[in-house]
Amino acid sequence: MIVLVINAGSSSIKYQLYQMKSETVLARGRVERIGMDSAIVTHEAEGKPEFREVCEILDHTSALKRITDILVHPEYGSLSHISEIEAVGHRVVHGGESFPESVVVTTEVKQEIRKLFDLAPLHNPAHLMGILAVEAILPDVMQAVVFDTAFHQTMPKTSYLYAIPNILYKRHKIRRYGFHGTSHMYVSHQAAALLGRPLESLKLVTCHIGNGVSCTAVLNGKSYDTSMGMTPLEGLMMGTRSGDLDPAIVSYTMAKEELSINEVNSMLNKHSGLYAVSGGLADMREIVEAMNDGDKNAKLAFDMYAYRLRKYIGAYAAAMNGLDAVVFTAGVGENSPQLREAVCEGLTFLGLRLDRERNRSPERGERRITEDGSPVEALVIPTNEELVIARDTYRLALNRGKGS
Amino acid sequence: MIVLVINAGSSSIKYQLYQMKSETVLARGRVERIGMDSAIVTHEAEGKPEFREVCEILDHTSALKRITDILVHPEYGSLSHISEIEAVGHRVVHGGESFPESVVVTTEVKQEIRKLFDLAPLHNPAHLMGILAVEAILPDVMQAVVFDTAFHQTMPKTSYLYAIPNILYKRHKIRRYGFHGTSHMYVSHQAAALLGRPLESLKLVTCHIGNGVSCTAVLNGKSYDTSMGMTPLEGLMMGTRSGDLDPAIVSYTMAKEELSINEVNSMLNKHSGLYAVSGGLADMREIVEAMNDGDKNAKLAFDMYAYRLRKYIGAYAAAMNGLDAVVFTAGVGENSPQLREAVCEGLTFLGLRLDRERNRSPERGERRITEDGSPVEALVIPTNEELVIARDTYRLALNRGKGS
Repeated sequence: MIVLVINAGSSSIKYQLYQMKSETVLARGRVERIGMDSAIVTHEAEGKPEFREVCEILDHTSALKRITDILVHPEYGSLSHISEIEAVGHRVVHGGESFPESVVVTTEVKQEIRKLFDLAPLHNPAHLMGILAVEAILPDVMQAVVFDTAFHQTMPKTSYLYAIPNILYKRHKIRRYGFHGTSHMYVSHQAAALLGRPLESLKLVTCHIGNGVSCTAVLNGKSYDTSMGMTPLEGLMMGTRSGDLDPAIVSYTMAKEELSINEVNSMLNKHSGLYAVSGGLADMREIVEAMNDGDKNAKLAFDMYAYRLRKYIGAYAAAMNGLDAVVFTAGVGENSPQLREAVCEGLTFLGLRLDRERNRSPERGERRITEDGSPVEALVIPTNEELVIARDTYRLALNRGKGS
Repeated sequence: MIVLVINAGSSSIKYQLYQMKSETVLARGRVERIGMDSAIVTHEAEGKPEFREVCEILDHTSALKRITDILVHPEYGSLSHISEIEAVGHRVVHGGESFPESVVVTTEVKQEIRKLFDLAPLHNPAHLMGILAVEAILPDVMQAVVFDTAFHQTMPKTSYLYAIPNILYKRHKIRRYGFHGTSHMYVSHQAAALLGRPLESLKLVTCHIGNGVSCTAVLNGKSYDTSMGMTPLEGLMMGTRSGDLDPAIVSYTMAKEELSINEVNSMLNKHSGLYAVSGGLADMREIVEAMNDGDKNAKLAFDMYAYRLRKYIGAYAAAMNGLDAVVFTAGVGENSPQLREAVCEGLTFLGLRLDRERNRSPERGERRITEDGSPVEALVIPTNEELVIARDTYRLALNRGKGS
């Protein structure tokens, strides 16, 4: 079965085309700057030349049409006919409390996604546009949605409730949802396999460290607590997001700088984090480079980022009363030995003994970076959210086939 | 030397009169509802009958006049003449970055306290009123101020900076200050004495758990990190304060409930925490009672409160890369064996082995509550902020005597 995985943003669509039998990626690409006369399309397929064009693409449906055209293009494409795509899986950031797992898209599911616009105003509307675009271009294809929040729906109340009036939860569903769930789930399964131990017996802290950063206490295979909250702003320091801060700072900043609440939110989401502390660098590679060149602000940003991550790992070890392994994943987690070292070297009290050489080895792929016999392990596990989306979509398509 | 310790609030003055030679409290009392025609004065002195009256007291100066009158009252008082008071020490909540230690009150000090009104609008103005009242009633007496923030001025930047634009720190001094410093400092010294180990070699987490709650990583005797932030709102769940939450909740609540920013702040400070989750109980004794009677909301409030505290202890152990002892202090910390048990029983992974009997013993005073030989200790240390204020004031008075 061929499955198309789609991650639709407000002005972009990223996609991967999967052959599910072998779980191989046949093609991948993206359309960026949707809505502009100079949208950019990039595409690469196994054994084909890379494709790139700049053209006018005004909406998500046109973008998807362009993508399907390229997928069947004799020179650049991988398919002879678009009907070979049997199912499409979408990443959806916010599933609220309605979706503890992936589901087939129905009218009701679309309504629920729409109801969650308020909670994920930057993401869910774009995802729905992606779903509607597929309906328009591939009307007969089954669609499934895979939620970033789903994995975290196992959290107990003590983790997901805020200590604020209950009416806010009842009326407006203000609670911790957590994000990056697909990634946390994937890497925890891979970690158990790599450790050769059943996931159901493990206490893991999975650290998804990309531009967004979150960490999750995975207890016996289930999300027990996670650092992102009602929105992805809470928790760890990120590329441009502040993470945790005194909630009183919001009003204080509004008053002192004469800013609107939206301006403060924008500041906390887009102009904070590494970017703010380093004085303009949001990318960990640039931070490390600048730090090595003696830049004190870059060093401070790096140190704060690592320090806060270490505190969350300690907090989640306490949440689970123990820790078997720390898992590093996503862009920075997979590719910054410096960060992993800074985090791990303060966790020797837990019994985590980093092997510096293993950590700095240029090896890619899943691997241990602790010494042999280290009571607490540290692992690097490349994440693969698209594969999870493809698998869930495939499974739902098969079940549906059986059911009908 | 006789020292009067004063804690002036916006509508109250609490006081203790110390004989410093023996460090004994000669008298203590409070004036409440200042500004009303039915203010309440209560006073008790060693070997004297208790005193109580309801009368009109319209400002802090009148309140202090009433206090000094009682202190020399032939039936209720402890002094023959008010001139026996040689120094007055004030608790001041916010010392900003100007005061890493206690100081003698001067014109400049009063100006600095005034500059910090914005950062502590509920506290610093009241403290200044207390200082001015003493100037009016006891014009020749030396005054000293002891700051709740002072102990935390040793925090490194990685602990005290938020990951927000630096201009907010430079212009408006938005940073973590931390509070309850006098208490955290006092109990960490006492803990070292009880453990029979030098404070300079210890990694402690001190938990001040009263109506306000904060915990501090005390590394080698110095505050390394603390849970309260720019204001006392951040950090742990408290009697009526929310503690940590997604900063995005502030604006979301404003929008959804059509509240002003002040109303949201008020909600987070006065109607959240234990009170909100339990549905009306802010006092830990009432929570435990209701929980034992099968009240599910009280149980949830208790569990959240303990869970979050445990996470902070784990986080601070990671911050210091180790932990020698957890110290419980203040109303709840000293008097709730249930809470201490709930916190400690999830910390066995650190080597903390609670002795349930010791923990539940009705014994008062400083004590260990862990098993003999427990690698990480848990201690109960009654706090005594007034004594620290009296000592600092006494020391400053002696030094001043030498200097002049």
